[in-house]
Amino acid sequence: MRQSTYLAPTLRDIPADADVKSHQLMLRAGLIRQSASGVYSFLPLGMKVLQKVETIVREEMNRAGAQELLMPAIQPAELWQESGRWEAYGPELMRFKDRHNREFALGPTHEEVITSLVKDAVGSYKKLPMTLYQIQTKFRDERRPRFGILRGREFLMKDAYSFDTSFEGLDESYNKMYEAYKNVFTRCELNFRAVVADSGAMGGKDTHEFMVLSNIGEDTIAYSDSSDFAANIEIAPVNVAYEKSSEALNDIEIISTPGKKSITDVAAFLEADKQRCLKSLLFIVDKEPVLVLVRGDHEVNDVKIKHFFEATQVELASDQETSSWLETEAGFIGPVGIDNKVKIIADHAVKYMVNAISGANQKDTHLKNVNPDKDFEVSSYGDFRNIQKGDPSPDGQGTILFKEGIEVGHVFKLGTRYSEALGATFLNDQGKAKPIVMGSYGIGVSRTVAAIVEENHDDDGIIWPNSVAPFQVHLIPVNIKQEEQRVLAESLYEKLEQQHFEVLLDDRTERPGVKFKDADLYGLPVRITVGKKATDGIVEVKIRKTGEMLELHEDDLLEFLAKTVR
Amino acid sequence: MRQSTYLAPTLRDIPADADVKSHQLMLRAGLIRQSASGVYSFLPLGMKVLQKVETIVREEMNRAGAQELLMPAIQPAELWQESGRWEAYGPELMRFKDRHNREFALGPTHEEVITSLVKDAVGSYKKLPMTLYQIQTKFRDERRPRFGILRGREFLMKDAYSFDTSFEGLDESYNKMYEAYKNVFTRCELNFRAVVADSGAMGGKDTHEFMVLSNIGEDTIAYSDSSDFAANIEIAPVNVAYEKSSEALNDIEIISTPGKKSITDVAAFLEADKQRCLKSLLFIVDKEPVLVLVRGDHEVNDVKIKHFFEATQVELASDQETSSWLETEAGFIGPVGIDNKVKIIADHAVKYMVNAISGANQKDTHLKNVNPDKDFEVSSYGDFRNIQKGDPSPDGQGTILFKEGIEVGHVFKLGTRYSEALGATFLNDQGKAKPIVMGSYGIGVSRTVAAIVEENHDDDGIIWPNSVAPFQVHLIPVNIKQEEQRVLAESLYEKLEQQHFEVLLDDRTERPGVKFKDADLYGLPVRITVGKKATDGIVEVKIRKTGEMLELHEDDLLEFLAKTVR
Repeated sequence: MRQSTYLAPTLRDIPADADVKSHQLMLRAGLIRQSASGVYSFLPLGMKVLQKVETIVREEMNRAGAQELLMPAIQPAELWQESGRWEAYGPELMRFKDRHNREFALGPTHEEVITSLVKDAVGSYKKLPMTLYQIQTKFRDERRPRFGILRGREFLMKDAYSFDTSFEGLDESYNKMYEAYKNVFTRCELNFRAVVADSGAMGGKDTHEFMVLSNIGEDTIAYSDSSDFAANIEIAPVNVAYEKSSEALNDIEIISTPGKKSITDVAAFLEADKQRCLKSLLFIVDKEPVLVLVRGDHEVNDVKIKHFFEATQVELASDQETSSWLETEAGFIGPVGIDNKVKIIADHAVKYMVNAISGANQKDTHLKNVNPDKDFEVSSYGDFRNIQKGDPSPDGQGTILFKEGIEVGHVFKLGTRYSEALGATFLNDQGKAKPIVMGSYGIGVSRTVAAIVEENHDDDGIIWPNSVAPFQVHLIPVNIKQEEQRVLAESLYEKLEQQHFEVLLDDRTERPGVKFKDADLYGLPVRITVGKKATDGIVEVKIRKTGEMLELHEDDLLEFLAKTVR
Repeated sequence: MRQSTYLAPTLRDIPADADVKSHQLMLRAGLIRQSASGVYSFLPLGMKVLQKVETIVREEMNRAGAQELLMPAIQPAELWQESGRWEAYGPELMRFKDRHNREFALGPTHEEVITSLVKDAVGSYKKLPMTLYQIQTKFRDERRPRFGILRGREFLMKDAYSFDTSFEGLDESYNKMYEAYKNVFTRCELNFRAVVADSGAMGGKDTHEFMVLSNIGEDTIAYSDSSDFAANIEIAPVNVAYEKSSEALNDIEIISTPGKKSITDVAAFLEADKQRCLKSLLFIVDKEPVLVLVRGDHEVNDVKIKHFFEATQVELASDQETSSWLETEAGFIGPVGIDNKVKIIADHAVKYMVNAISGANQKDTHLKNVNPDKDFEVSSYGDFRNIQKGDPSPDGQGTILFKEGIEVGHVFKLGTRYSEALGATFLNDQGKAKPIVMGSYGIGVSRTVAAIVEENHDDDGIIWPNSVAPFQVHLIPVNIKQEEQRVLAESLYEKLEQQHFEVLLDDRTERPGVKFKDADLYGLPVRITVGKKATDGIVEVKIRKTGEMLELHEDDLLEFLAKTVR
């Protein structure tokens, strides 16, 4: 490709509204342009990378035996009403009415459509198992689109769905996808982990997120410093052997703590460890109040509470709810004297607390020497807190560290959530109708491109891995008007293209400094500079990743490239 | 691919709501399924064909030097308001509001988006010419979606846009696309013509439609029986040397014609040729009344009227408008006595009419012996009628015939319509800002698939051309439970796949009749049946297109297939 008329406009300055590296670099290197909040065009250079990632995904899906199809973006409201998600999905679902005033959604995901397709097409167990996938533009009206294409409102997804006759079959289909995902992200040369995650609003059980470990991201990953363990902190189990102190139990004292609401303030005021404080939070769990207790240095994990109660909704009580249930305000809540009005659950660590400090259920007042099971009754102890840095890894190997993660993939056991809602059954070998057992598997194709940039760059620009580089070679005649340089560059261009190397030829009449700056920004794996030694057939080769430079005779180029970029 | 778990459900009966062959066959062969009116899924078999057509399009675009990008489907209303199309596009534009109540359209076409992209990225004449394209899902809220994916509301398009510094440059870019389109449709083995068409609501001049000649379709193509001439009848020029009769001009007679409104009725009632009748139609042209006259056996062409007046809107007058301007009703309108109130234009043929019959501008009354230029004044004669079967071809060679056409492509010179509206300029070599000169080029990718089916089928099913067949070979063991057949079929399957033939293996336990019926319906180019002679390594080969059957030894298969399907 000739750069002179190639649409890949570079920017020297960092765009003001881009605050993560991948977003900045994708704008600066002319890979993408914004056309509305969270809505982007892929310019030719970005499109090439997107297509390479798409090809990797397609190859691995096909290799895993999945069949490609293409479902529509436009989805009738009725289907979503049948599954119960028309209401549940909320404002993220983009909705519109057609000219006949019928309601539609723009698909953010396709469980409903594929279930209804398979329902009509698959009658017998003989057609199963089957895994179907598509690579398609998806729509989600994010409240706060950000980080460029990392969290956009229109994006490219690979979504796959598996259909089995049994849960054992689902396990097998799930594992195939899991392996395919590992292959995809390995081929994209990403530093990722498959982490145990929460099943969230999708309904279903067993789920892994494929997370690129990063310094940015919207999820925090807890991982072991000495094993494979990794999990979203939303879900990471806490497995700590607490010890009870031998301290004698004292009697409760009432203390005035005017204006001291946070654990930090109370602990400082009373010159006590945070560990000695009891953190008491009132939640509304499916309309019922629940007081949740954790140790003062721990954080409550509401996902775990949700799972514990198998609840649909878990929310912190509002000021009004707090005062109506406990006749006090947040900051002074405590378990003593209320176990008859409100159910109390507590994290395991609480059981081992002695002579704790807690709120007194009275404004500006706390209690000292509060002891669980003596001064109040806990209805259940359980794992209700977030895992923390320094905790032992739940698999018993090593210590927990944290890293941010960019979610690039998600595999998910749906079970019969959708097949039952939409009546998708198969006849088993006894002729009996059974609901199909489903899995659902997503890869953010465009997001993966951003994750690759986020992980592969330096101060000068992007550093593309070979597998997804838009071109393999950047061929730069220092001065295109100098005849020997032009002729050698053109002949190399032709020769390399003939050998199926992908080459970007900088045939512009720009100054060398401009050309080199653009080249570093684009970040193609190998730069070949045709300069003064062109008369001798000598070119300069630079490896973008290592910065290594060497001189080569044109006759040695093909061999060098074959081992460097293939 | 193994058919037993392949999602390609066949239907024996013709679906009730499908009234063209391609629609019926695509449903029956399990290529597509409807999910809402005009909204379809491509099942795996259909998806493979779609991708093959897509690949052909991509290869020809790249070969023509066009650069691929991907613009968003979501387009901000502001862009369409700037170009003036937010209102003009009407209800076909699908619109929605996001969670912040901002208005957007789902792109049916991308002139606005690409012009604004290029505006920001191209400063100088040095970056031009440039042709950009994408292959993308488009949305159009058709009033009456029909013919399956031939006229859907969500469809796959290739849209390209060229950017030049001059109109001469545009001609060159246009011709490159024109040639690329010819290559695309030739490779798809379609019987097509590039026809001169109307530029319609797009704004611009010079345009060709690539029409697949067919027995169905929404456009009528006038073509010469002995030259390359072909044009949409909307636009085909009429070039007839009329002769004036030598008949003497008589005086007007008033005749009572109670209830005789149509030309057919009047001619029959007066025992006259239709050719002797004057057809008078009142149009409202941009709010002004215009009486249009054509000979009784001709049809008025309102596109030509629109072009003649360079009008925005041309519509037949309503009853109310007719009575308010002419104090009479349609059916009895005529030119005599009104040329002072209403402008009269007439088709060339009218000039040669003598002693004609026309309406009298009075209910139930006609006039005989009306003569143009004597009894009324014509403000302009011109080409205002549709070309007809039997007319001489406008290029002077041969006679006009009609055929229906399926529009699969459209090339279009936009000029500066969008670059001026959106301020997309370049600096020329004198540093002066000039509007970029644009072209726009579309291919209906999914529609092309339907057109291929419409053209290639028989009573038993589809007959895929090699270039786009979803698989090349249908491999059918007659009885999969018979060990020799199963073993030979499996070994052939492996061998052919290794040689990169695309093979569908019918490994189902169905009766042979069912398998053969499905095979004919799917229509893969070559069917290989493994039957009783499997023990001798002999298979039966059937060519779907010709019905030719032969027996071959397995060792001769590869050579045979290489010359048959490659």
